[in-house]
Amino acid sequence: MTFLMSVSLALAVEGMWEPSQLRGLGAELKRSGYLDDPAALGDLNHAPLGAVVSLGGCTASFVSDLGLLVTNHHCAVGMLQRAQHDGEDLVQSGFYAPTRADERPAGRVSRVSITEGFEDVTAVVHKAIAGAKDDVARNEAHDAAIRKLVAGCERAPGRRCRVVRYFEGRRYTLVRQLELRDVRVVMAPPDMVGNYGDEVDNWHWPRHAGDFAFLRVYVGPDGEPADPAPENVPYAPAHRLSVSTRGPSPGEFVMAAGYPGHTDRWRTAVEVAREAELSLPAWRGHAAFTFDVLTRWTQADPAVAALVGVPRSGIANALFNAVGTLEGFRRSGVVAAARARDARVDAWIAADPARAARLGPAVAELRASFGHADARHRQESLMDWLGRADLLSAARQLYRWSLESEKPDSRRDLGYQERDRARARAGLEELQAHLHLASDREVFVHFLGAVVALPEAERPAELMAWLRAVAPAAGDDAARVEAAAARLYTSPALADAATRVDWFGKPSSALRASTDPWITLAVALRPYDEAREARGKAQRGLELRTRPAFAEGLAGAEPDRAYSDANGTLRVTFGTVQGYRPRDGTVSLPQTTVAGIVEKAGDWPFAAPEALTAAIARGAWGPYADPALGTVPVDFLSDLDITGGNSGSPILDAKGRMVGLAFDGTYEGIVSDWRFDPALARTVGVDVRYLLWYLDAVAGADTLLAEMGITGTI
Amino acid sequence: MTFLMSVSLALAVEGMWEPSQLRGLGAELKRSGYLDDPAALGDLNHAPLGAVVSLGGCTASFVSDLGLLVTNHHCAVGMLQRAQHDGEDLVQSGFYAPTRADERPAGRVSRVSITEGFEDVTAVVHKAIAGAKDDVARNEAHDAAIRKLVAGCERAPGRRCRVVRYFEGRRYTLVRQLELRDVRVVMAPPDMVGNYGDEVDNWHWPRHAGDFAFLRVYVGPDGEPADPAPENVPYAPAHRLSVSTRGPSPGEFVMAAGYPGHTDRWRTAVEVAREAELSLPAWRGHAAFTFDVLTRWTQADPAVAALVGVPRSGIANALFNAVGTLEGFRRSGVVAAARARDARVDAWIAADPARAARLGPAVAELRASFGHADARHRQESLMDWLGRADLLSAARQLYRWSLESEKPDSRRDLGYQERDRARARAGLEELQAHLHLASDREVFVHFLGAVVALPEAERPAELMAWLRAVAPAAGDDAARVEAAAARLYTSPALADAATRVDWFGKPSSALRASTDPWITLAVALRPYDEAREARGKAQRGLELRTRPAFAEGLAGAEPDRAYSDANGTLRVTFGTVQGYRPRDGTVSLPQTTVAGIVEKAGDWPFAAPEALTAAIARGAWGPYADPALGTVPVDFLSDLDITGGNSGSPILDAKGRMVGLAFDGTYEGIVSDWRFDPALARTVGVDVRYLLWYLDAVAGADTLLAEMGITGTI
Repeated sequence: MTFLMSVSLALAVEGMWEPSQLRGLGAELKRSGYLDDPAALGDLNHAPLGAVVSLGGCTASFVSDLGLLVTNHHCAVGMLQRAQHDGEDLVQSGFYAPTRADERPAGRVSRVSITEGFEDVTAVVHKAIAGAKDDVARNEAHDAAIRKLVAGCERAPGRRCRVVRYFEGRRYTLVRQLELRDVRVVMAPPDMVGNYGDEVDNWHWPRHAGDFAFLRVYVGPDGEPADPAPENVPYAPAHRLSVSTRGPSPGEFVMAAGYPGHTDRWRTAVEVAREAELSLPAWRGHAAFTFDVLTRWTQADPAVAALVGVPRSGIANALFNAVGTLEGFRRSGVVAAARARDARVDAWIAADPARAARLGPAVAELRASFGHADARHRQESLMDWLGRADLLSAARQLYRWSLESEKPDSRRDLGYQERDRARARAGLEELQAHLHLASDREVFVHFLGAVVALPEAERPAELMAWLRAVAPAAGDDAARVEAAAARLYTSPALADAATRVDWFGKPSSALRASTDPWITLAVALRPYDEAREARGKAQRGLELRTRPAFAEGLAGAEPDRAYSDANGTLRVTFGTVQGYRPRDGTVSLPQTTVAGIVEKAGDWPFAAPEALTAAIARGAWGPYADPALGTVPVDFLSDLDITGGNSGSPILDAKGRMVGLAFDGTYEGIVSDWRFDPALARTVGVDVRYLLWYLDAVAGADTLLAEMGITGTI
Repeated sequence: MTFLMSVSLALAVEGMWEPSQLRGLGAELKRSGYLDDPAALGDLNHAPLGAVVSLGGCTASFVSDLGLLVTNHHCAVGMLQRAQHDGEDLVQSGFYAPTRADERPAGRVSRVSITEGFEDVTAVVHKAIAGAKDDVARNEAHDAAIRKLVAGCERAPGRRCRVVRYFEGRRYTLVRQLELRDVRVVMAPPDMVGNYGDEVDNWHWPRHAGDFAFLRVYVGPDGEPADPAPENVPYAPAHRLSVSTRGPSPGEFVMAAGYPGHTDRWRTAVEVAREAELSLPAWRGHAAFTFDVLTRWTQADPAVAALVGVPRSGIANALFNAVGTLEGFRRSGVVAAARARDARVDAWIAADPARAARLGPAVAELRASFGHADARHRQESLMDWLGRADLLSAARQLYRWSLESEKPDSRRDLGYQERDRARARAGLEELQAHLHLASDREVFVHFLGAVVALPEAERPAELMAWLRAVAPAAGDDAARVEAAAARLYTSPALADAATRVDWFGKPSSALRASTDPWITLAVALRPYDEAREARGKAQRGLELRTRPAFAEGLAGAEPDRAYSDANGTLRVTFGTVQGYRPRDGTVSLPQTTVAGIVEKAGDWPFAAPEALTAAIARGAWGPYADPALGTVPVDFLSDLDITGGNSGSPILDAKGRMVGLAFDGTYEGIVSDWRFDPALARTVGVDVRYLLWYLDAVAGADTLLAEMGITGTI
């Protein structure tokens, strides 16, 4: 795209760069300290980028020729849960497979996706949507074009393809990935190493988490992607990372490669304000309630903790993110800054009459489209949280799938094609790993009660009709909610994985005829869901028209803005190992050390395992000590520009060697999803030396070290 | 005392030095950067020490020739409450009296005490207790000697005297103070300046509190101490501090003078362990409950907040202190260190047979005296918290006073002599300022229920008998507790200040004959109280014998230990302005700035007043900016060795000029009451430049500035 070539690439610290942009950033990379060839760096057919894979929501990288992957511990907890046998708690205990035979299947939903190529399909998509008669039709034309592009791409066996929007739809790219389906767990430290500090430390510095884990990905004996099977063999990646034993030092160049999921740096000020003032505060309230319920259950019963621990951690993380984002909005004046920026966009658009005629109305229409009533937002937000009840979510999936399956594959909504079936089915099975009806019910009752307590005009008619039908005898709304919950949660058939799978694939008529209370509820809510889907489709159609106009205006007003918002595709960020001043009177140093683990040690979440504290007390650091610190560093800060999805991203030194793994950001930098502040946005990584020292001195994982080409010495 | 002369005075940073020790520390003071004559520094008849007074629990200092005192805001909140008229909330709003006529009386319990002299009375006390036939008699002989010494000293008009123990009773000193009774409030910033950050920031760095206030003390027209009266005139102090406009800089010498109340650095390891493992954990639990009740009430109703805010803050502070002390015990291994130290004490004692025979048995007996049953501790701890109910406390005071008043003054227990009467009476009146029956009742019911729930053998028989008598009809214990509370808290006569004062002075027979439910309870508990008092007297008698032996052993084993535990007498500490590493990966800088106030500003407790934030936004710093920072510093850190009672202590520079006021410590240093760690113990002070800039640029308090000899310029 020529508009990319015209911009300055001076703002190197901020930026989630596409591989294809790295050549253009060569001078800046060199100036920052990169020692290899920037052109080669952007090549998917070389290390390091060729070794960096997506786990779907996390990043990992190959560190051996036998499919060994390193990622974050927190990216592997779901796999550990799926891998454990009855009576085991692998998250708690940690896991180490000294031989390949000891490795455990990470579950049928686990995937490793290797990016093979990018193809610009902008012309195809733009042409498809150009002549649409209205917004709904435009959205459908868009989806149809994408379905076709994806289907063509996926004719190659074992490939998964996506059409991804860059720069708000000014560009579309078809991303082709090799998808491997047999993932196994090799090694994870105990939770109180990998997740040391849990949500007390989460998003905070200083951190002392050993947030790493090892997986291995397998293929069929023919070398092709295959379902999990005993006869499968380790995948031989074309590229692997070189693992440094040196680690990063303050002031040094670092970069990270990974799959950042989503940022909002190209949003209109109207959207920023809506997020800061309406959406996020409401979300925070609902999440806080749910979090409190799960926390209470977790504390009351270790068996429940093993079930809801992972969803609870997910909510804790997102909740803290929300709190930090709201704080960041305030502290950094993000809304005011966005309004000032939008004024510059408007001025740039207005500066040229032709441009004003072309872009002005679309930008105005885009902004106006976010002006819908707060009341609707309130209701939809509550309905979303109500819909998180596991069995309601499952029942809705079942009914939606039954309906979509009755259409030709090429006409179905995205996400409900045959290509999506295996994964959906596996998801239905494996929700068992965290299903806990008592806490689920408590949350469900709360949100159902909250919806019922809305003003009459705001309550969804479909839900109220169902409620009256399911609890006809109950006296008042509160009694009805309780009666409905009793009906839904008393020995629900869908709590059985086989029953859920059994429903999957049945015709929609069978579901409509069912008396299962959850399926009845899903069927009853279908008109409500359809109305929301229809509104969503119209809105997307509108945005297909109008977002590129705003993006053009923004790029015009701010020509330094040279990278697209995160969209789950492979990106590279580079910067420097450095601390920061989180607030007046305080400095966050760029590194922590094992001494800090002992300093914090105590009750959960600081219950460092005896094996770890004893090894620290022994003080045998081998080659893993930092010369300046005289001890083993644990975590470190850098100004790398990452977001959710980057978890597990390898952090590389100036020669492209792995020196750490990104796993978190800092509180003051949370708002960088909306606006990046170089003084405050920091990535938290685990130092490769802590990882290696742990494997060597604590876990005795010599086979792993050897496989990475490192000789254990302690 | 010759044993003092024999020790090295090398450990200058740690130490709460007596004025008389400063001459001996001359070389160390000079080396640390002190520029004036160390010998003169120790002189009560010179500035600065001659200007440093006690407020009873806080320190203040004269900063004008007309009795103007500066201290901490948090030392003045009780005075502000007593000074306010109906409908005012001077803590919230702040206060400024531009003229003397505008100044407000700080209440009849307020006192300013000026130390005039110290007299060694060791020989007198040691002789008095030498021949006692048992521990109870020894305690009585000790108290009799002290009553006599105090009575002799207080024959001088307007003087208050105390006999104070140094070095665990190896020395006794008679301290003579001039006591002034007419204290008035001159200026205090609003709570959200003086107490910015409240308990969120309390004990934490970075701090941004403007914790200062101004008082003025008055005397009769004859210049003698007088009760508050309109015709009184400002007291003309013999000495006043010079107020610097320069402030402290990192690395510079500073010292502080004040009245530290209590430390426990000379305790046996048995006591340290008991505190860490039994007393403090129990206390923390009870305090946390009480704090939660007061917090709930405070949040529910601003009118209640105005009543219970001060006691609530007191509990919050003590609670956080307890939490931090427990954390410090753990983190610094204080119990293990004390045990190792005691082993050295024992070794030193055992090294010489005569010494072993003289000290060994006493030390063993001292340690054994703390071995009483945990059950008794549990019960007494609950009874203490039950006894904090305001009207029970008042009723017990009334009854105890009535009993003691029937003895000759010279035979009464310490604290119940005629010299104590006026203050006790004022206290009974002025508890009105924080009396809030609903929250008081909630706490009372909780602790009464907890005592009643103890195992049968642990319940105080007197309390149970009273409970059955007051609620004979109630079915079970829980019902009895509720019935008793209903009886006590329904329109209690003692909730009226005049009624309380009316009872004060009545014969004990009148109280025994009373049917007032609170007085009935106090009378019923008297045998319980007497038994505890008797045990306390015997224990004190034992300690009078045995503590000096342990102190001699400790001084022998650790000859650098050259200063006594804090005991409420005037002390000097010196050190350096410096930050610290609170934990791995983090540095606390030595100074904060006004920028940090804006950074934190938001909801309470960070609701910075508009006048303050506007002045910061204007950025007119006048002469008050720190040259290195380019802005006005707010608070600063130093390694001065302080504790409770030092609040309000002037921090002085190398020439003895006031550059700040001490007001807090840091979390990591809280445990320094038990063991001082030079790497972690830090004093938090407010920079004089923030104080002056606030007076000048925000409060417009030109008269105050002028009185201190400073010309307002902003």
